[in-house]
Amino acid sequence: MSEMPLLQQLVDALRCLPGVGPKSAQRMAFHILERDREGGLRLARLLEQAVERIGHCSRCRTLTECEVCRLCANSQRDPGQLCVVENPTDVIVIDQATSFGGLYFVLGGRLSPLDGVGPAELGLDDLRERLRVDQVRELILATTTTVEGEATAHYIGELAMGLGIQVTRIAHGVPLGGELEYVDSGTLAHAFAGRRRLMENNP
Amino acid sequence: MSEMPLLQQLVDALRCLPGVGPKSAQRMAFHILERDREGGLRLARLLEQAVERIGHCSRCRTLTECEVCRLCANSQRDPGQLCVVENPTDVIVIDQATSFGGLYFVLGGRLSPLDGVGPAELGLDDLRERLRVDQVRELILATTTTVEGEATAHYIGELAMGLGIQVTRIAHGVPLGGELEYVDSGTLAHAFAGRRRLMENNP
Repeated sequence: MSEMPLLQQLVDALRCLPGVGPKSAQRMAFHILERDREGGLRLARLLEQAVERIGHCSRCRTLTECEVCRLCANSQRDPGQLCVVENPTDVIVIDQATSFGGLYFVLGGRLSPLDGVGPAELGLDDLRERLRVDQVRELILATTTTVEGEATAHYIGELAMGLGIQVTRIAHGVPLGGELEYVDSGTLAHAFAGRRRLMENNP
Repeated sequence: MSEMPLLQQLVDALRCLPGVGPKSAQRMAFHILERDREGGLRLARLLEQAVERIGHCSRCRTLTECEVCRLCANSQRDPGQLCVVENPTDVIVIDQATSFGGLYFVLGGRLSPLDGVGPAELGLDDLRERLRVDQVRELILATTTTVEGEATAHYIGELAMGLGIQVTRIAHGVPLGGELEYVDSGTLAHAFAGRRRLMENNP
């Protein structure tokens, strides 16, 4: 290992990044060494700091270097609306795309008993406590439509409804601008079964 | 800058890598923090070491952390054949794809007077010295076919021929397996003009 040239070690290390194969890793290593050594040093410093300092928000479990993340610490947001997502990325995506003004809860995965992921691993005790303390009015389920994602949504939905909270699920169907002939049959069947009455006088 | 969350700083820093846009950078940052903190630390360490320790080979100018790179230090290789390339990546690509057993010389760019890249920047003094000392018999030009690459090849070719060295240029033409209708017209014209007589009794 220590006999391997440093350059080759760097190429190997770059492959820990998702979507980076041997060719791109080589290109990245050469780019840094030949054109952007400063950027490489900055990246090294930030990787180290991020790995050491970034943990999970004590309230919503998203990634943050603070005790409580920016969203949870923002008093402008309505704690009465809580959106449950699987990953920290989902928080960012939803917050950028929608005008949702409530708070989030990050599961960090989906229920998957065979992989040892149960309610405890997803922090559902924290979630129950939070539903009670924050007097949540609406719980929005934004887990994925995989089998495990649906099972997770169902489990959490039951839990919240048991506490008398209104539970909603984000809509799944044909994407905007999607041509029907290119939509997969599962999505199309789902969209067809979930059709909604068209109001004559929309409010 | 220091007010920006550490996670966002890391995402920005990842964008110094070639081919990494805002979405991939975000995905990489989350991947490291959620699934591979160890890989992230290893990458940080190697980036730092590589930037600090990797310099250029004193003989062929490729990237290496030693005074002389592995290829130049390999006494099995024939110093009488010298292949001139633009970048360190080219050395690796040629060495993996061909059975070339000679040595390399890395220019680190192409002649481009408008950008301030002249013969001195490409180390052509070193090259001339090396052609003389190593008693090079054949100089193989493997620069690109851009206008600047061709000009560079021409310049170096003249230099070597002045020293009585045989100069060759790698072949450019239709790629193996390439269908003529999909080959760009420049390549096709070049391949046509550079056609070679077919030997009836090939050796």
